[in-house]
Amino acid sequence: MIPTHRDTASAATETVTVDLGDRSYPICIGNGVWAEIGPRLAALPATRRAAVVTNTTVGRLYLDGVVASLSSAGFDVVTVEIPDGETHKDVTSLTTIYDALLGARIDRATPVLALGGGVVGDVAGFAAATLLRGVPFVQLPTTLLSQVDSSVGGKTGINHAAGKNLIGAFYQPRLVLIDLDTLHTLPRRELLAGLAEVIKYGVILAPDLFATIETQLDRILALDAAVLRPIIARCCALKAEVVRQDERETDYRSILNFGHTLGHAVEALTKYKTYLHGEAVAIGMAFAAKFSQLRGHCEEPTMRRVVELLRRAGLPVEIPAVVRDAHLTAVLESDKKVAGGRVKFVCVEALGRTRFEYVTAEEIAAAAR
Amino acid sequence: MIPTHRDTASAATETVTVDLGDRSYPICIGNGVWAEIGPRLAALPATRRAAVVTNTTVGRLYLDGVVASLSSAGFDVVTVEIPDGETHKDVTSLTTIYDALLGARIDRATPVLALGGGVVGDVAGFAAATLLRGVPFVQLPTTLLSQVDSSVGGKTGINHAAGKNLIGAFYQPRLVLIDLDTLHTLPRRELLAGLAEVIKYGVILAPDLFATIETQLDRILALDAAVLRPIIARCCALKAEVVRQDERETDYRSILNFGHTLGHAVEALTKYKTYLHGEAVAIGMAFAAKFSQLRGHCEEPTMRRVVELLRRAGLPVEIPAVVRDAHLTAVLESDKKVAGGRVKFVCVEALGRTRFEYVTAEEIAAAAR
Repeated sequence: MIPTHRDTASAATETVTVDLGDRSYPICIGNGVWAEIGPRLAALPATRRAAVVTNTTVGRLYLDGVVASLSSAGFDVVTVEIPDGETHKDVTSLTTIYDALLGARIDRATPVLALGGGVVGDVAGFAAATLLRGVPFVQLPTTLLSQVDSSVGGKTGINHAAGKNLIGAFYQPRLVLIDLDTLHTLPRRELLAGLAEVIKYGVILAPDLFATIETQLDRILALDAAVLRPIIARCCALKAEVVRQDERETDYRSILNFGHTLGHAVEALTKYKTYLHGEAVAIGMAFAAKFSQLRGHCEEPTMRRVVELLRRAGLPVEIPAVVRDAHLTAVLESDKKVAGGRVKFVCVEALGRTRFEYVTAEEIAAAAR
Repeated sequence: MIPTHRDTASAATETVTVDLGDRSYPICIGNGVWAEIGPRLAALPATRRAAVVTNTTVGRLYLDGVVASLSSAGFDVVTVEIPDGETHKDVTSLTTIYDALLGARIDRATPVLALGGGVVGDVAGFAAATLLRGVPFVQLPTTLLSQVDSSVGGKTGINHAAGKNLIGAFYQPRLVLIDLDTLHTLPRRELLAGLAEVIKYGVILAPDLFATIETQLDRILALDAAVLRPIIARCCALKAEVVRQDERETDYRSILNFGHTLGHAVEALTKYKTYLHGEAVAIGMAFAAKFSQLRGHCEEPTMRRVVELLRRAGLPVEIPAVVRDAHLTAVLESDKKVAGGRVKFVCVEALGRTRFEYVTAEEIAAAAR
């Protein structure tokens, strides 16, 4: 099904533009915006075909509706499903997409639509970046996490046995359509995991957003669109501004990795099976706040406020035992942000203010023990 | 071994700059330029590691010398070998590279050097484009074909069961070092295949180059550096100018596909086993010249001059029987240059002058019968 509320779609839609010159693109946020999928795609350069990549879980809920919208706008639609879950963000899923879309003889003008969360977006985006050396890419993110994070900024890729996101490309979508109605089918655990990234934007860039989350937490968790829509739009705008300033992460963009250094290690050491990405990032943010205080960069009340909001949001903040073991140093050193043997660690100084610290993996591991 | 003649290297080196703004890079052409590999890489942004990708055949000849040059310049070198041949331009070779380099924990500043011909360059380049979302890439092309063609322009990628180069990325190298001494170990058949692309530049862009090849063919085949060096530099400069004007092949760059539409089909229908790429392109260029005359775009003498030079260079010009069969139309339609059901076919009007014709696959297939 396509989410409903179509009659109110335009009135309640916010658009954030990601400003990247000739690769700029709009993010449209609102209830019922997916009703516009077909007509909006039809406005792209001439093509009669479209490909939709989804996973088995999201596909069951939304694929028919998306295909119907595309078909009624005149598109011949190819669909491909990959298995659900972070463990499937791999070369096997990528090959599944390559085989299906190349087998269907898509051409260079055929848009690839990612219908799903971050895994679908990352894998489908990498496929779009590399199929025929690049075809148009459109995001239909269905999780809070992918709506505020992976749908902005053009990072695409897959995991490798040696670590997360080690294979990928920077590739911007042409269009992102965020239909808030999809959040009603999102498991609560995934909603909370997405909220971790929302909190992250507050910590690193926007004290007012952080305060809003503190006061409006109940309405956010109740999916009150009047609260959620501007929060999601704000997160997209905040990330878009960071990406505009440093698209390819030469330096500044790394602030978005707040909580991710340890978060990625938590995911790797638990084999991507115990925690959702946002949960691992929550653990990583709580640690980063403590580490920042430990190094003398922030006051204890700031650290406490970060940890407390994460806890109130139902997110994990304690480092699991398996992460404290002997492998943490090695895993941290394999992070692709490592350069010259030092980890670029994002510390918080105050809400909305960060600094980079270049530390050894062992210093982080010692603090995590 | 590293090729010798080091004492004359600087005097006899030509440099062509590929002008692509902040992605510009130099191509250095001469005898003995590989003596500079280590020092030149050491001038890149700080890194102590380097990765060399080669194939088993080229590796036996040159890997030790390249590694020695890098080691003596202070680099810790990781090497990986893939099997030799176009059939290995595939996801298996790509995975071999990913596993080796990620297993060795390369970082974002680690350059990947492609030591070999077009296959090694394309696969290693695609790996460099996608490892950690992009690491520095350096080309050490060892075949005439890769020196004049694939080392310029940033096309990287692998083949897929559905067709050639269907998966890939545009990714520019930081540096290309063409050591003419490597041509002395190149099998004559591969030399001739490379000459096909040299002739192509003459046909589509440079009547004077075409005339030089006609008069100097014997000296070229004898690997006379005084003749070869300026010819290779000219080819690189011609391609560089096309790429500068249209890096991502939105339109004009397609002229480089002269002879490639049928050439790719010849390769696909003979399963990449019968012809070298340049040989298939020679067949495709002879056909394209005939097709151009057939459609009234060029005079018969132009067509004859193209076919005759290819023939004199020992290249195949006749379409093999297997390509004339019923599958040609389908194979042509799967070419990634197809858009809206029409093939963008490069016709020659006169030496140095081309035009695009948008024709159906069936029209091409009919002419090829």
